[in-house]
Amino acid sequence: MPVKVSIIGATGYAGAELVRILSRHPDAELAALTTQSYAGKPFWEVYPHLYGYTSLVCEEMDLARVIEASDVVFIALPHGHAMPVALEAGRRGKKVVDLGADFRLSDYKVYEQWYKVEHAARELLAEAVYGLPELNREKIKSAWLVANPGCYPTSAILALAPLLKNNLADTGTIIIDSKSGVSGAGRGLSLNTHFGEVNENFRAYNVGVHRHTPEIEQELGRLAGQAFTVSFTPHLLPITRGILSTVYARLTSPLSQAEALELYRGFYRGESFIRVLPQGFLPQTKWVSGTNHCDIGLTVDQRTGRVVVTAAIDNLVKGAAGQAVQNMNLLCGFAEDTALAGPGLYP
Amino acid sequence: MPVKVSIIGATGYAGAELVRILSRHPDAELAALTTQSYAGKPFWEVYPHLYGYTSLVCEEMDLARVIEASDVVFIALPHGHAMPVALEAGRRGKKVVDLGADFRLSDYKVYEQWYKVEHAARELLAEAVYGLPELNREKIKSAWLVANPGCYPTSAILALAPLLKNNLADTGTIIIDSKSGVSGAGRGLSLNTHFGEVNENFRAYNVGVHRHTPEIEQELGRLAGQAFTVSFTPHLLPITRGILSTVYARLTSPLSQAEALELYRGFYRGESFIRVLPQGFLPQTKWVSGTNHCDIGLTVDQRTGRVVVTAAIDNLVKGAAGQAVQNMNLLCGFAEDTALAGPGLYP
Amino acid sequence: MPVKVSIIGATGYAGAELVRILSRHPDAELAALTTQSYAGKPFWEVYPHLYGYTSLVCEEMDLARVIEASDVVFIALPHGHAMPVALEAGRRGKKVVDLGADFRLSDYKVYEQWYKVEHAARELLAEAVYGLPELNREKIKSAWLVANPGCYPTSAILALAPLLKNNLADTGTIIIDSKSGVSGAGRGLSLNTHFGEVNENFRAYNVGVHRHTPEIEQELGRLAGQAFTVSFTPHLLPITRGILSTVYARLTSPLSQAEALELYRGFYRGESFIRVLPQGFLPQTKWVSGTNHCDIGLTVDQRTGRVVVTAAIDNLVKGAAGQAVQNMNLLCGFAEDTALAGPGLYP
Amino acid sequence: MPVKVSIIGATGYAGAELVRILSRHPDAELAALTTQSYAGKPFWEVYPHLYGYTSLVCEEMDLARVIEASDVVFIALPHGHAMPVALEAGRRGKKVVDLGADFRLSDYKVYEQWYKVEHAARELLAEAVYGLPELNREKIKSAWLVANPGCYPTSAILALAPLLKNNLADTGTIIIDSKSGVSGAGRGLSLNTHFGEVNENFRAYNVGVHRHTPEIEQELGRLAGQAFTVSFTPHLLPITRGILSTVYARLTSPLSQAEALELYRGFYRGESFIRVLPQGFLPQTKWVSGTNHCDIGLTVDQRTGRVVVTAAIDNLVKGAAGQAVQNMNLLCGFAEDTALAGPGLYP
Repeated sequence: MPVKVSIIGATGYAGAELVRILSRHPDAELAALTTQSYAGKPFWEVYPHLYGYTSLVCEEMDLARVIEASDVVFIALPHGHAMPVALEAGRRGKKVVDLGADFRLSDYKVYEQWYKVEHAARELLAEAVYGLPELNREKIKSAWLVANPGCYPTSAILALAPLLKNNLADTGTIIIDSKSGVSGAGRGLSLNTHFGEVNENFRAYNVGVHRHTPEIEQELGRLAGQAFTVSFTPHLLPITRGILSTVYARLTSPLSQAEALELYRGFYRGESFIRVLPQGFLPQTKWVSGTNHCDIGLTVDQRTGRVVVTAAIDNLVKGAAGQAVQNMNLLCGFAEDTALAGPGLYP
Repeated sequence: MPVKVSIIGATGYAGAELVRILSRHPDAELAALTTQSYAGKPFWEVYPHLYGYTSLVCEEMDLARVIEASDVVFIALPHGHAMPVALEAGRRGKKVVDLGADFRLSDYKVYEQWYKVEHAARELLAEAVYGLPELNREKIKSAWLVANPGCYPTSAILALAPLLKNNLADTGTIIIDSKSGVSGAGRGLSLNTHFGEVNENFRAYNVGVHRHTPEIEQELGRLAGQAFTVSFTPHLLPITRGILSTVYARLTSPLSQAEALELYRGFYRGESFIRVLPQGFLPQTKWVSGTNHCDIGLTVDQRTGRVVVTAAIDNLVKGAAGQAVQNMNLLCGFAEDTALAGPGLYP
Repeated sequence: MPVKVSIIGATGYAGAELVRILSRHPDAELAALTTQSYAGKPFWEVYPHLYGYTSLVCEEMDLARVIEASDVVFIALPHGHAMPVALEAGRRGKKVVDLGADFRLSDYKVYEQWYKVEHAARELLAEAVYGLPELNREKIKSAWLVANPGCYPTSAILALAPLLKNNLADTGTIIIDSKSGVSGAGRGLSLNTHFGEVNENFRAYNVGVHRHTPEIEQELGRLAGQAFTVSFTPHLLPITRGILSTVYARLTSPLSQAEALELYRGFYRGESFIRVLPQGFLPQTKWVSGTNHCDIGLTVDQRTGRVVVTAAIDNLVKGAAGQAVQNMNLLCGFAEDTALAGPGLYP
Repeated sequence: MPVKVSIIGATGYAGAELVRILSRHPDAELAALTTQSYAGKPFWEVYPHLYGYTSLVCEEMDLARVIEASDVVFIALPHGHAMPVALEAGRRGKKVVDLGADFRLSDYKVYEQWYKVEHAARELLAEAVYGLPELNREKIKSAWLVANPGCYPTSAILALAPLLKNNLADTGTIIIDSKSGVSGAGRGLSLNTHFGEVNENFRAYNVGVHRHTPEIEQELGRLAGQAFTVSFTPHLLPITRGILSTVYARLTSPLSQAEALELYRGFYRGESFIRVLPQGFLPQTKWVSGTNHCDIGLTVDQRTGRVVVTAAIDNLVKGAAGQAVQNMNLLCGFAEDTALAGPGLYP
């Protein structure tokens, strides 16, 4: 019997992507799609590409009822709103994957400093697991509350993990220059996502102050075994889907190009979703579009003593809904790539 | 045991799309991928989004050998080059789906007039079936040689079939204004597909002389039971995938909006890939991106006495590789939507 | 001494384009920029591409004061809001170019039927001139109130004028299939202009019911000397600027391709902004991007007896602000192309 | 009397942009447009957006004749091909602006190492001036041979000059992460500029080995008074025009945000084309599209001790043809912004 799954905040882009992925999941069944704005509308009216694929009707959130009817709850709400949902789900013994930021930072003070809201479920922070399966698989399997990573952090952490775990990167020199498609900003209206302002345009934003910074630093710090700061600069690409992060670090000891590739290949051996690209290939966002892959390319620059890692993901899949389903698969004991396998759409 | 499938001309966009779709087909197995330019290269080097999904190596075409090793042969070659392949396959009793134009026109003289080459396999024209399953399903099932429709004709014919079949359109008034994404022009290099020339740009081309015109007229004529000419104008959209055709016809007798919708719904009842959109919705190319769907929207304009039908497809799927696999499924007795079901990628 | 010019509703895209064009006009000087949302902000903060080019500060509209301080008033407001401004300007003897719809339709009943608001300045309709200089130049010169044409009508009317004026088009067969960039929808936020919904997408909208229809029919009817209806279908292109209209008409008497070109060349001889493209060339929106040009291409299709005209404009220039300045130049006795000459930006 | 100007290699994108800019230059007159591929064709047939703006016909290069007929020669050829042109022009006492790389590197050995061709005009290297007017204005005025900077170096050097000149940047920590529109790769056909491969896609390329690296290092070294290496990573944006470089450096001594802005404002005071954006604004490529501006934004990140500078240019204008005309204006004693002033096209 399939698990019953609900999506709280289903009508944003991450929610719609969850519906798309789960519609082909053999072991999961959508139980409820809640929304603030579209209650009473068939979900396909909100996302007509799904016409014929779901007959569910959007509903207002009746928390107790929805959670009771679900085995797994996905939360796709703005930060600050997941806490009551997680508390209620915990009380009722249900599993939760939160796609937002509320349970990503172990230290509530860091959360409150960067997100400017009070943390209303501090007691859950010790139970929440950071849901990057390639690094935390075993913990996720035995958790009930998973904090699905941010899109930028997913690309940055996967790009650096093998180096940091092996003390090969000088932690004082790390720069993460990330570029994201516009869908990362969601379906909410703003001049920043208005076609005429974004199309044929490119810019950096939130330089040095983006909220994914402490999340990246927390996880990189764990990998390195020590705390440090990084420079993280997000940019807005005039494309719908895709993140490419270009990551710089000075090497602590000499490493050839071949050794670096071998290191990464070894680190990610057996991972279905990580593709360390062969020598001569560097990631392109379109190669992973619509997939749960993270493609990684490496360049060791002997002139400067730096390694330059580029990592590409689809921000709505491996950066959000796909990784969330990957976490659900682990939580529920399904094959990890269920509903997630398959090549992307190119061109 | 899965059928053995080869793709002749596999490294164009339609070929790559065939590989993508067939890579998830449970009843088919890729046997050979032939190419003019990349022989000896792993296919994933030509299309790195497929890295990890196929280990096949491109090979030069050794016609007899490739056909002998195959149960079904897909031909994705420029027009004029499919004839020898089809002749050889016919001789050996293999099934063929030709994605090009060589077997679409029943009258070789029309072919020669529009395509400016001699038809070298006239004897096969009587055996070839025009592969639009929604109209010719039964014929396809018992055929061995299927002429996969052109991308523009697929959208135009599906948009008009219910009207013409019911003598509701004045055949002297039909105008087909079509807009296609750039991938329809293939992967071959030309100034017409150079990013700087196409991006943020829009234009009509080949007005009144596009080679899909006689194909459209042949099939519409069959539906109406009489020959007539149409105005067909293709345009180039600055997007990768998608065709939207806007089709105009004067009604021969009054029809309400509701009656028109009901007519179309009835005509396409039971079709998995045709979605006649409900009142209030008009097709968008992105709603069908990556799918084998044809979405159809209707507007009866009582002021002018015209019906305006818009039809959207993904030119590489329902307009090429997807429809080709749909035809293969019929030829081989598989469920018609095998490897083709599922919603598209949005946004 | 330069004329004093104000823009009522300056912070939309048409307003910003007026500021850009007027910033290089030697005979005009911006006096006031009014706005609903940004009062008190320097205009460059609203449009930073103009940083260093204007030091004007947005102000709330104080109608009497602004008009008193101006020789010419541009109105760039939603329909229904230009009437009080025009009335006041008329009272004070100032010249007005209204970029909206309020004075385009001579018959207030048609206006009220299509725009669903009452016309509050009917007495001005007889004085207003439809501001398409290529057709109404002399009337504009002696007017005080100019109704700047809609973007779609500009392209459609210029495409058809030579045929209709010469009774060469069967008025019962006219179809106008238009495609517009997203900036035509303005800077106001809506899901229809949200990047993720529009990018890599294409669709028709408002089929048969777009408000530019009566405007097109009014002007085409004047050219033909009789009233008739047309099918007009707007589509949304995933580009920022540009309109291409593809216009179909059955010829009333035979015409060769060369004769048709000669007819158009003769009709538009001496016009600085109309480029009838030579045989072998069809308009592309990017060729006119940033210019006040309307490029026109012709195809006479002897097979169908139809002529297919394509016309391209920049919707914000010849379709809005550029044509408005062209009208101001006529109103004020300046050279018609002042501040408007020069090639566009390509690629 | 205007100076006579020729463009050698006029039919690439930089050449076409020179024609566009020079067509409105009051003191220059186009004498000859040479080309390899289009000899005998009117230039507007190669670039129809210029229809009506130039009647010049493309011609094959007859070096002696073309140079003799010119006062100033622009060279827009692939690297390695400018040397004979410059030698001949020098012999005849004509002024030269080379848009390629042949005279940018003072040390021919560095040139030969990175460009893999022999330098055939070493004797001119001492006379050539690096044509970044904001840094080398006086030298340019008295030169005859100007090496127009590369597009990436223009953005990177202008971003860093104030810091390096004041010894505020730790030269061992400089990282230049640049993103360019596709027009930077020219009009030549390649899979790398094919619409289907580039559209809705993003990637890094030539990591650590791009040929603009030694040019950047040479000029930054001059500013700092010492040689050092930088990490330079180019990326390909799916837009036509625009470069944004994100530049990182560790500060050598503490600097507040306000002090940094003041430093940059002072350094570039009086420069018509450099806009140091006010606090709260960061550059966007579209704000400079079609202009000769370089917009600069600054963020001092006290957490990491780094400054992050973003600089935006139009790669075909300030990054190529516009800067070339700026250099010509200096060479000829014209006002530096002749034909180059004016705001860009937005949206």
